[in-house]
Amino acid sequence: MNHVVIMAGGIGSRFWPLSTPEFPKQFIDILGCGRTLIQLTVDRFKGICPDENFWVVTNEKYVDIVKDQIPTIPESHILAEPAARNTAPCVAWAGWRIRQEDECANIVVTPADAVIMNVEAFRAIINEALGYTAAADAIVTLGIVPNRPETGYGYVESEAVLCGNVHKVAAFREKPNLETAKQYLSAGNYLWNAGIFVWNVGTLINSIRQYAPQIAGVMDMMVPDGGVPSKSVEELFPTCEKISIDYAVMEKHPNVCTIPADVQWSDLGNWQSLHEKLEKDSQNNGCVGRVDLYECQNCVVHTEDAKKVVLQGLDGYIVSEKNGQILVCKRSEEQRIKEWSSGEKA
Amino acid sequence: MNHVVIMAGGIGSRFWPLSTPEFPKQFIDILGCGRTLIQLTVDRFKGICPDENFWVVTNEKYVDIVKDQIPTIPESHILAEPAARNTAPCVAWAGWRIRQEDECANIVVTPADAVIMNVEAFRAIINEALGYTAAADAIVTLGIVPNRPETGYGYVESEAVLCGNVHKVAAFREKPNLETAKQYLSAGNYLWNAGIFVWNVGTLINSIRQYAPQIAGVMDMMVPDGGVPSKSVEELFPTCEKISIDYAVMEKHPNVCTIPADVQWSDLGNWQSLHEKLEKDSQNNGCVGRVDLYECQNCVVHTEDAKKVVLQGLDGYIVSEKNGQILVCKRSEEQRIKEWSSGEKA
Repeated sequence: MNHVVIMAGGIGSRFWPLSTPEFPKQFIDILGCGRTLIQLTVDRFKGICPDENFWVVTNEKYVDIVKDQIPTIPESHILAEPAARNTAPCVAWAGWRIRQEDECANIVVTPADAVIMNVEAFRAIINEALGYTAAADAIVTLGIVPNRPETGYGYVESEAVLCGNVHKVAAFREKPNLETAKQYLSAGNYLWNAGIFVWNVGTLINSIRQYAPQIAGVMDMMVPDGGVPSKSVEELFPTCEKISIDYAVMEKHPNVCTIPADVQWSDLGNWQSLHEKLEKDSQNNGCVGRVDLYECQNCVVHTEDAKKVVLQGLDGYIVSEKNGQILVCKRSEEQRIKEWSSGEKA
Repeated sequence: MNHVVIMAGGIGSRFWPLSTPEFPKQFIDILGCGRTLIQLTVDRFKGICPDENFWVVTNEKYVDIVKDQIPTIPESHILAEPAARNTAPCVAWAGWRIRQEDECANIVVTPADAVIMNVEAFRAIINEALGYTAAADAIVTLGIVPNRPETGYGYVESEAVLCGNVHKVAAFREKPNLETAKQYLSAGNYLWNAGIFVWNVGTLINSIRQYAPQIAGVMDMMVPDGGVPSKSVEELFPTCEKISIDYAVMEKHPNVCTIPADVQWSDLGNWQSLHEKLEKDSQNNGCVGRVDLYECQNCVVHTEDAKKVVLQGLDGYIVSEKNGQILVCKRSEEQRIKEWSSGEKA
């Protein structure tokens, strides 16, 4: 059976005040389409696995939000992390739990907060990946076909075709500088690592056992294959090594593959990418929420709670409002938002 | 006895969203000093008349706000207009009512929403004016000594000294064009009409009887000198001619005087004048409320309800927030705020 594991533990504050540690980005209708990012993620996998095979790993403080936003998910499939330990322990926990229910599980692991506009193409690729890993001891990672020399993402270097659209991965590449990113783009076989992995439960568990044995040891106590846990999740989970699944497993595994995916993906990691995704008016403003604009251009505006917002004479600004917090800043300065959101100015 | 009549019926929307027709400017702590404009007006007359001699004329929908903000005022001294008829009927009603309680009353009439920073000098001038009108059938109007060739105010042309600092008024002058305003400023005997008048109750009533007989006729029915009113305020007041006290009486009365007043007056009629009155930071920003500014200059910011506001990279903007409504606009465009506040943008 197919299963989908949604990693939803992020606390991103780059979208403050829209996103806060109490209510992070994945739980927000950031595109103004009526569905939050995690809901869009669930929607994207409709038809790939039944409702009862969804899993969400998130911080314990977001469990109620998950229940509220994804009422179809079994409560026992919401894995509540008592502490953030990066993605390897998160994936491991899901894998160990899925094995308890389905020893033949075939698993997609995905972040909760990416956006994919071409869902049909995405589903075809996921189905091809699941078909491949159903029989093979391999990891298939989605390789997003780049459209620009992006320096903000890691890359997957692909080589020969193994089968259909499945390519062998030559290497994972760290975030490049601009020159290298340009070379990657023109070479054509470098893809963005979107953090979407497909593998069967045996490959998952064996990989973690081999390449992240400390985490596997914790999982064996926390989620034993038969018998009862020796200690609680609260005691055990925080003892896991804090490491990403990429570093812990992907970069070491000998059989990682990729399917190049041209699916209009965006990680929506910042206001810039939100502006790109939003429908723009004739003055290149992208707005979510009720706003009256006069002589504004190149702005990205997201309002949630305000009853009325009037903006005049702004060019190239971010305007964001939620829950009595307001931000107005130049789009060029968005990397400072995180600092402003927490800082008490002197 | 001295009485103070505060005219507080304005519904100005030039400070939207700070000021709204439901809660206009005079009831707002626009300076961020802890007192609303009408409270500052009451404070200004402390020592000039006792609490029980204050009167407020306002629209009926603001009565509860007045009670709340000026708990010392007798409830029967809040005159609730069922309709806005400009200032002449408002002053007349107060005059007729005061005569019922005090036939020898000496009265100051003042707007509720001006700001006077030099209260000590102001009180001295008011006392001199009251001393003059206690014995004379005259109207003394405060003439604000101008500091710029302002085209937004009416002027009072003063001439010879009658007594002390009391000058005869030669004429009232309409809002001038810039050239005329410059001539007024250099001439030295043209003063701003601040709408603050001092007269005794006999002069007040006789003046209205002579120069605004329609209004006097309504008042004789509404507030008879002995006996009971023939009809209700709701029926009678709206039948008054809609006219300002300046047009109706001041410009026609033969014995209007003025005392030049250098009292750091401001009508706070717009964001520009608020910016002038506020303490500025090193970048010429004037802020009321909790705001974090980064690389901002020449801004005027007023926040009321927001928990946190971060502004970056704004030069010469108005930022105002209240009750879930937000405005960001260039200071040069503030004359359009009124239109934006009511308009539903297509």
